[in-house]
Amino acid sequence: MTDICPEAFVSLASELADAAREVTLTYFRRRVQVDVKSDATPVTQADRETEARLREIIRNAFPTHGIIGEEEGSDRPEADHVWVLDPIDGTKKFITGNPLFGTLIALLHEGRPILGIIDCPALGERWLGATGRGAFHISGGRNERVISRPCPEIATATLYTTSPEMFAGSDADAFARLQRASRFPLYGGECYAYGLLASGYADLVVEADMAIYDYLSHVPVVTEAGGVMTDWQGAPLGLESGPRVIAAGDSACHARALALLRGENSG
Amino acid sequence: MTDICPEAFVSLASELADAAREVTLTYFRRRVQVDVKSDATPVTQADRETEARLREIIRNAFPTHGIIGEEEGSDRPEADHVWVLDPIDGTKKFITGNPLFGTLIALLHEGRPILGIIDCPALGERWLGATGRGAFHISGGRNERVISRPCPEIATATLYTTSPEMFAGSDADAFARLQRASRFPLYGGECYAYGLLASGYADLVVEADMAIYDYLSHVPVVTEAGGVMTDWQGAPLGLESGPRVIAAGDSACHARALALLRGENSG
Repeated sequence: MTDICPEAFVSLASELADAAREVTLTYFRRRVQVDVKSDATPVTQADRETEARLREIIRNAFPTHGIIGEEEGSDRPEADHVWVLDPIDGTKKFITGNPLFGTLIALLHEGRPILGIIDCPALGERWLGATGRGAFHISGGRNERVISRPCPEIATATLYTTSPEMFAGSDADAFARLQRASRFPLYGGECYAYGLLASGYADLVVEADMAIYDYLSHVPVVTEAGGVMTDWQGAPLGLESGPRVIAAGDSACHARALALLRGENSG
Repeated sequence: MTDICPEAFVSLASELADAAREVTLTYFRRRVQVDVKSDATPVTQADRETEARLREIIRNAFPTHGIIGEEEGSDRPEADHVWVLDPIDGTKKFITGNPLFGTLIALLHEGRPILGIIDCPALGERWLGATGRGAFHISGGRNERVISRPCPEIATATLYTTSPEMFAGSDADAFARLQRASRFPLYGGECYAYGLLASGYADLVVEADMAIYDYLSHVPVVTEAGGVMTDWQGAPLGLESGPRVIAAGDSACHARALALLRGENSG
C-alpha cells in the first residue's frame, strides 16, 4: 500500500503553520487596517501577508502543486495535489482581539483532503490530521494523539456553530430542529470547535455559508480522530463541495443529526 | 475624600481569583460529573468547589461582609459590603474544553459594584477594575492599564453577545434592531467580551437572561476603562438589577444603542 500522505507533506504543513504564526501574531491586538471585501467580510493586511508567505513556501517546496487561498484565489486547481489555505479563519474574532481565530491548511489529493491543520496561534494550540497517520493536538511542546468521544444520541450531544446568521431560510429551520434536539448549543466556535470535537470535548459542529477553505482542513483532523465529517447530504467533502458541513465525533450521532437536518424522523 | 475601594479589598479579590484558578484548572479538560440545575443549566463539581473555596477565604478575611454566589445562594446580602461570585461563568464552554470561561468576582458597597475581576484561567488573562483606581489587564506577569476605544457610531461598532437564545420575544426584536445597525455581531463572547471591550478591541456587548453574578463584576472593569455599562433602560447596575445589560466603550455609542434597543429613532 502506498503512503497517500508522505512525511514530507506533513512536515511542510507544519512549516506553513509555523510561518503563519509568525505573521498573524505580529498583527494580533495591534491596530490593523481592516478592509471590506466584495462579499462584505473583513480582511486585513495580516490575512494577505500570511497567505502570500504560505504560497511562497509551497511554491518553493512543491512547484507542481496547486494552491487555492481565500485571499488570492486559485493557482493550478486541477493539479494532483492542491493546498487549500485560509490564512485567518475567524477574521472578525481576530480584529476584536479574540484568540479564537485560526490558520487553516489543507492538502488535497485528487480532490479529497488527506492532510489538515487547524492552528490557533494566540492560544498556542494546533490540531493536525493526516490520512493513515492519526490526528494530534500539539500544544506547549506536547504532541498528543486525539480521539473523538462516543456520543450516539443527539439528546446528549453538545452542538457548536459559529453564528446564527450562517443559516438562512430552510437552513435555519434545519438547524433549529437539530439545536432543539441537542443537549445544548454553543456559539462562536469557529475552527476551534472542530478541534474540540476531535479531542473528545464536544460532539457536533454544524455550519452553513462556508467556502472550501473554511472547512477542508478540518476533515482529516475529524476523521483521523474517529469522527465523521460530510456535507448535509452525507456526501464526502472535497474541492467541489458546497457551503453546508457537519462534523460528529460519533458516527451514530452523525447519522441522526443528518436525519434531523433533512427533516426526517430520526428513529 | 475617602477611598471607597481600599487596597485591602483589591488584594483580597486578586487572592480569590488566584485561588479559583487553582481549582478550575484542576478540572478543566478532565472528565467531570455534570449535573443539571433546576433552571436547566449545567453545574459541575468544579463550580461548587470553587465557590466554596472563595466563600471560605472571604469569611476569614472579612467576616462582616455579605456573600452572594451562583451555587450557594445568599449570606448577609444586606451587609454594607457584599461579594458577588460566579465561580465558572460559561459552564457550557468549560465542559466542552473551551478556554473562554471565567471566574467572576464583584464587590458591592451599598448595593453598587466598586470592584470587579474577570479571570480567565485557561487563557491566563485577567481584567480587574476598581473604583478610582482604573481598569487593568493582567497576563503573563504584566499588569497594564486599559482604556476603551472611541466609537461613537453604531455602524462602526462590533457587537458581542453570547447566544441568540438569550433573547426571547421583544428582547429578540430589540437585539435584532441593534445587530442590523452594527458593523457586525459576534457570538460566544461570554465574560471575555467585556474584557475585550475594556481593552479597546470591541465596542458593544449586549446580553439578556442574566443574573447579577453574571455581570456585576464587569461594571467596574468597563467603567474604569472609560466605558459605560447599564441595564437596557440606561439605569446603573446593582444588587437589584434585572436580566438585561449593555456595555459600550464609548458613551455616545451606548446612548445610540439604548435608543435602538428601545425602538426609538436613534437620531
